[in-house]
Formats: sequence, C-alpha cells, structure tokens
Amino acid sequence: MKILIKNVHVISMDSGIAGYDEGCIAVDGDVIAYIGREEQFQQDFAADRVIDGKGMLALPGFINAHTHSAMSIFRGYANDIPLMEWLRTRIWPMEDRLMPEDAYWLSLLAIAEMIMSGVTAFADMYMFMDQTAKAAAQSGIRAVLARGLQGPDPKAEQRLAENRRLWEEWNGEAEGRIRVMVGPHAVYTCSREYLEKCINLARELGAGIHIHLAETRDEVEECRRRYGRTPVEYLEEAGLFKHHTIAVHCVHLTPGDMDILRNNNVHVVHCPVSNLKLGSGIAQAAVLVDKGINVALGTDSASSNNCLSIMKEMNFAALLSKGINENPTLLPARQAFEMATINGAKALGWEDEIGCLDVGRKADIILLRQDGPHYHPAADLITHLVYSGRDSDVDTVIVNGNILMEDRKLTTIDLEQVCHKVEEIRTRIMGRI
Amino acid sequence: MKILIKNVHVISMDSGIAGYDEGCIAVDGDVIAYIGREEQFQQDFAADRVIDGKGMLALPGFINAHTHSAMSIFRGYANDIPLMEWLRTRIWPMEDRLMPEDAYWLSLLAIAEMIMSGVTAFADMYMFMDQTAKAAAQSGIRAVLARGLQGPDPKAEQRLAENRRLWEEWNGEAEGRIRVMVGPHAVYTCSREYLEKCINLARELGAGIHIHLAETRDEVEECRRRYGRTPVEYLEEAGLFKHHTIAVHCVHLTPGDMDILRNNNVHVVHCPVSNLKLGSGIAQAAVLVDKGINVALGTDSASSNNCLSIMKEMNFAALLSKGINENPTLLPARQAFEMATINGAKALGWEDEIGCLDVGRKADIILLRQDGPHYHPAADLITHLVYSGRDSDVDTVIVNGNILMEDRKLTTIDLEQVCHKVEEIRTRIMGRI
Repeated sequence: MKILIKNVHVISMDSGIAGYDEGCIAVDGDVIAYIGREEQFQQDFAADRVIDGKGMLALPGFINAHTHSAMSIFRGYANDIPLMEWLRTRIWPMEDRLMPEDAYWLSLLAIAEMIMSGVTAFADMYMFMDQTAKAAAQSGIRAVLARGLQGPDPKAEQRLAENRRLWEEWNGEAEGRIRVMVGPHAVYTCSREYLEKCINLARELGAGIHIHLAETRDEVEECRRRYGRTPVEYLEEAGLFKHHTIAVHCVHLTPGDMDILRNNNVHVVHCPVSNLKLGSGIAQAAVLVDKGINVALGTDSASSNNCLSIMKEMNFAALLSKGINENPTLLPARQAFEMATINGAKALGWEDEIGCLDVGRKADIILLRQDGPHYHPAADLITHLVYSGRDSDVDTVIVNGNILMEDRKLTTIDLEQVCHKVEEIRTRIMGRI
Repeated sequence: MKILIKNVHVISMDSGIAGYDEGCIAVDGDVIAYIGREEQFQQDFAADRVIDGKGMLALPGFINAHTHSAMSIFRGYANDIPLMEWLRTRIWPMEDRLMPEDAYWLSLLAIAEMIMSGVTAFADMYMFMDQTAKAAAQSGIRAVLARGLQGPDPKAEQRLAENRRLWEEWNGEAEGRIRVMVGPHAVYTCSREYLEKCINLARELGAGIHIHLAETRDEVEECRRRYGRTPVEYLEEAGLFKHHTIAVHCVHLTPGDMDILRNNNVHVVHCPVSNLKLGSGIAQAAVLVDKGINVALGTDSASSNNCLSIMKEMNFAALLSKGINENPTLLPARQAFEMATINGAKALGWEDEIGCLDVGRKADIILLRQDGPHYHPAADLITHLVYSGRDSDVDTVIVNGNILMEDRKLTTIDLEQVCHKVEEIRTRIMGRI
C-alpha cells in the first residue's frame, strides 16, 4: 500500500532532530519513500491513502524495550504491598492458573493499550510466548520476544526448549516484524550452570539476550554474598555481555558496574514507574547517559506500573533525574525523547530500520494531535511532547506501512471483544469481585 | 437546573469510600439532592437533564490546591535550565511585558486544561488576579484566589491594596464559587515587616493565607542564616500559622518542622512534578500524612510542570514516596485519591461543601469513562484510577450544579478562541518562533 501523509510537522531525528513544518511523508509498502516539502515530491506517486496531518506532529513510534504483555491480567490486582509477598502470595499462584490461550487475549489487551499510546515496537519476556507472538503478528505491531528462563527446576529444560522453538518458528516472521531473543530471567533465578545454557543457546542461535539486572538492593546483596561480585560483574565474568544484551532496570549500580556496561555496549532499559511502584528505587538514568551508555525505556508489566505508556515513562525519566540530583539541567527533553525512540531501537538491535523517520527505513510512524490546551502556547515541540504530552494525543499509528490506529480507532484489534475475553479469564482464575 | 445522572458507579467517599454499582445522583440547583440506588429515589424529581452514566465512574472533582493560572504563557518556554537563571533571565523579564487583560485569556487557557482533566476547584496566587477571578467566574469553575505579595519594593504597598480590593470585590462572588485569601509569596521574598502587614491583612479580612514554604534547600539555608530558624519555625514565630494556611511545597523539612505544621493544622500542598522539574527535590509526603498533617496536591504553574493535571500529581505522589523510601506499602492508592479530593477541600477551607460526593454538598462531580484498555481487567476502581487513570478518561465535569464539560466538549469556554488569543499574546511578548 502507498500512503501519503500531508501537511504534517515532521520530527525526523535522523541526526539529531530535524523538523519540517508542513511537510509530507510518503510510505511505499513497509518503508518510508520520502520525507520533506510536498512541492518537491514526485507528482506520480499514486497514493492509495492520503492522510491530512494538519495540526499534527509526525514522530517515530515509541519503543517499549521491556514488558511482560500477558501480565496485563494482573493490572490493579494486589497493589501497595511488599514485593516478595506480592510475588509469592499473589502473582505466582495466579500464574499457575493461566492457560496458554489466555496469554493470546492478555497480550492483545496489552498491545491495544500500547498502540493507543503510540508504541510501535516492544520487547517482551514471559511464558506462553508463542501466544504473544500470534497476538503481535495479528495486531500488526513489531515485537522482540524471549521466553523467560529460570532454573534449575523440573520445567527448566522445557523452558529452554520453548525459547529455541520460539526462535525457530517466529524469528523473522510476520513480514519480518517479529524477532526472538533468549530470556534468562535474572541472576537470582538462574544457577550458574543454567545461565551458561542460556548463553550457549544465544550463541548457537545468534540471538540477543534480554535479562533483568540489578533491580533491587536485595538482588545485589545476595549476589555479592553468593558470588563475591555485583550482578553486573558476575554477568560479565560469565561472558553474557559478549552477546547483544538488553539489561533491564539497573537501579542499583556501582561506578564500576557502569563502566562494565559501557565497555560491553550493554543496552540498559530504564523502567522508572515500575521501579517506583515496587519500591525498588530510582535508577541514575542521567548518569548512565552521560557515561555514554545507551539507555532505553520500558514500562515493565501492567501488574507493576500499571500502564504500558512510553510517553509516561519518558516524562518520569526526564523529571526523576532532575529531582533526585536536585539539578534541573539533567536529562533534558530531547534526551528523554531519544530514550523513547532511537535508543529503544538500539536496545532491540533494530536501529538500522526503526527508531527515527528517514527515507528507506521501516514506516513505523505516529501522528499526534496538538489541539489540546496543553500544547499552547507554541513552544519547542519536543519539550511540549515530553513534559505536557498525553497518550490520548496519539491519533494515528502506522507500523511497517500498515495503519493500526486512525482517529484513535484501532483497525486490527476488536477491543470490546478483547476486554470481554479478559474479564472471562479474570473471573475464571480470580473469581467474581 | 435539575440533573439526574443514572446507571453510574459512585465513589462517594464521605467516610472512606462507598461505592454504589449502578447508582444515581440527583442534582438540584447547586447541591447534591440524592445519591443511591435509583429504585429507591423519588419518582417526582423532574430532571431538566438526564445523563446516562453507563460504564462511567462518578467522583468528586479533583482539587488543584496550588497553581499560577496565568503563567500558562510560559508553558514550554525555557526548560531544563537552573532555577535562578530561569527566573532572572527568562520568566521575570517576560512577566514585565504582560498586560492585565492578557491574564484573563491565560487564566482561561489554564482553566480549560484543568476542567479537561477533571479539576473542579483551584487555589491560585499571582498578579492581575481580578482577571483570573473574571475567568473563573465566566468559566464556572471554583477558585480560591490570592494576590502574590512581595516586599518591600516600590510596588509592595500596591500589591497589598490589590489583595484587599480582590477580597472586597470577589470574595463570595460568582454564586459563591470564588473566595479570596492573602498571598505572601515566601519567606525569602517578604521582609519581616512586610510579612506582618500580610498577616495583619489576613486577620482584618478573616481570610486564609497561601504561601510557598521550604521549596528549596537554598531557601532553608538562607532563612537559617538570616533568622537563625528554619522557614517553618520562622513563620510560626511570626504568628502566621494562627491563620488558616496553605503551605506549598514543604520539600525540605526537619522532624521539628513537621511537628510545627501538624500542631498548627497547617495544610501542606505537595507539588511533586514541579519539585522534580525544577530540581527542588522530593517531599516526604507519606511521612507527612503519617504524622497526621493534611496533605493536598498542586500542579504549580504550567511553566514548571508543564501540565495542570491533578490526576498526574496523584499518580506521582503515590509512586514517589514508595520509590524514595524503597517501600511499596507507602502512600497507597486511597491516600493519594484523598489527597486529590477531600484533602484539597480541607486545604481550601471548603471541606464542608466540596471534596466528596454527599447529599447536601455542592454538586462538584466528574464522570470518568472506563472503557479504555487501561481499566481492564476489572479491579479496585480507586487503584485503577490512581495508577492507570488518564486525564482523557474524564468525560463530564459539573461544578456547582452546572455542566462545564460533556463528552469532553467544554460548554463555557471557546477553546479555539482562547488558544488564538494566547498565541497572539505569546507572539507579542516573545516574538515569532
């Protein structure tokens, strides 16, 4: 399909951020064919669809570099209680009641929410990932999926086999929108031997690794006790960082840890809202960025957030580093915007095709309305977006050249049906409220 | 006018939070005449308007206990720079260019944004307050207004006279929706003699006091140097707390300061977003609440936030206390919701009439849509509201029995005209972008 978006203000951000006031974007198939002034564009581009972007801002889609989609079932379930009590008495018993096909509907709920807040690609690690893959394929969103791996326990080898099968069946599928990584859960849930099996699988498949790292003070202390190293030191020593790594959270780091992350080109995913809500602490995102580390943004799951909005994470990221360091110059708006877009693409290992708007790249484009009072008076658009922007400003979402939302209406997901199915699942596993 | 809201889930919160699934609310004139099951309601209530609240949540309107409405002109202007540089080189020179009638349009922009995010009452302190009063009166919102008072300087006496005139002309006006307080700006902008004039004016008028307090580390240190006391100790010694006091920010407090605030029934306004963005720090809101202090929420101005959303502040408040104390049990959702509603009413000295939904109270009611994916699966409604809720969920806003927004359309403000006027003002004082 050929799409022409006219009269739109384009934030291209190929090298820094370039704006075209009242420009146009041409999409041919799954790629961006042109960005610039309309009068300089070829006359013979026979668009199947023309979108009037008047008053709107065209941006690269937001990238959610860490979530657990199917955990949308736990949104609003058991809040404001301690982490281990939450996991042991609430989340884990309920997880045992989930059936594979539940994860399809739960992932669709999460994907619907992500699309409606401008997310065009996400990285996920959980169980029943073939169901999440199916939901991603059908919905049209882009996804990098990993089977969450913990062991040893009676199911540990099966999990590894599932991750391998996920790669065999889904890597590169759905018009290339789906890729697969290996998902060792964390230092504290994998034995050394099991961790090495995960690393070997990644090596064998040539896949990246998605892992939780240094989320809580307890995790760091336990690792020091058990291995005499910080979690970051331990993973470096194990050779994990020789592979493309998405390291999620990184709340509790030593300066030495930061050097290791930078020297190994590890991609850090900052999840400020989840880290606050679970009482894990506040990552030093501005310090990491200043060190030269690639920092992306993640929502974590709806059970610990409870939103899946990268616009919200972007706002929290820009504000928190200023607040905790009592320095309003840290993590300015453009840095936060980059974390939400191009840095996310880098974390996913996909920066050659997504993360900014540029000719030849994949057409992952969102259009934002700017007619709300919160966009007035006129000022720097990135500043407005980061500090005043709201999910509901997202009007249109295009992924891989396909329109997934227009005028805030989803085109590939029947939200009413999804919500109905999700309520059935909730009633089955948790009972009536 | 008589309004009947049917089929709605009511969060009444008169004593705690009582829910009526599929209840109804009757509004007669400016008060709530009935809340409860529809079948038990009088048959002869001849409603002029019937609103179908199916699928919606009825709540007391949010209360923004601290803002500077007319500073909406500075939204997105000069961000990510140090506070004093921001004030001295950016904000103050521009403020000198503002004309009184500008403040009318700028206040309307702020009020439009507040109504659209469910705010039904706000406390304001700035200049040209008669213009803000006019905007509040015409828009139908509820407001507690104070002239910002600084001195001595050549205009200091004039400011006091303006505060007095504001009280004479506006206190109790606009069907009782507008009240007036006295607004000494802060310890560091008022001499002792001038502060006493402010206190005397409050005593004479029988008015409350609205003041910034302990916002930054510098403010506290300077006060200690100059007066040998913390700002809180200093104001207590000056006798200011003998009057109803809205103390804004309270980021940097000693345990002794907290005792003083509690013993004097001072109302603290927590402004988490502004405090983060300006790099002031993070107030210990959960500790203040546990001490028994009434803590409300404020946005501060659009120049330091850049939103005027109490739903956003509520979310930040609930998350930040957990994060900085690494304790997920602090400031649970219901506490945050109370801060945004009844505690705000108390701060405004208006808790006998607003802050919760109850028969005989003023009809300040908002209706929230719950059909977004972020409200699924079903769970505790307050939890969903605090952790997942978005401004755009607010569908209908009623203040004093009048409908100010319905189906997200403002009924008393021509937003397009307001934005046009605001852009004219911006161009006049800042030039073309």
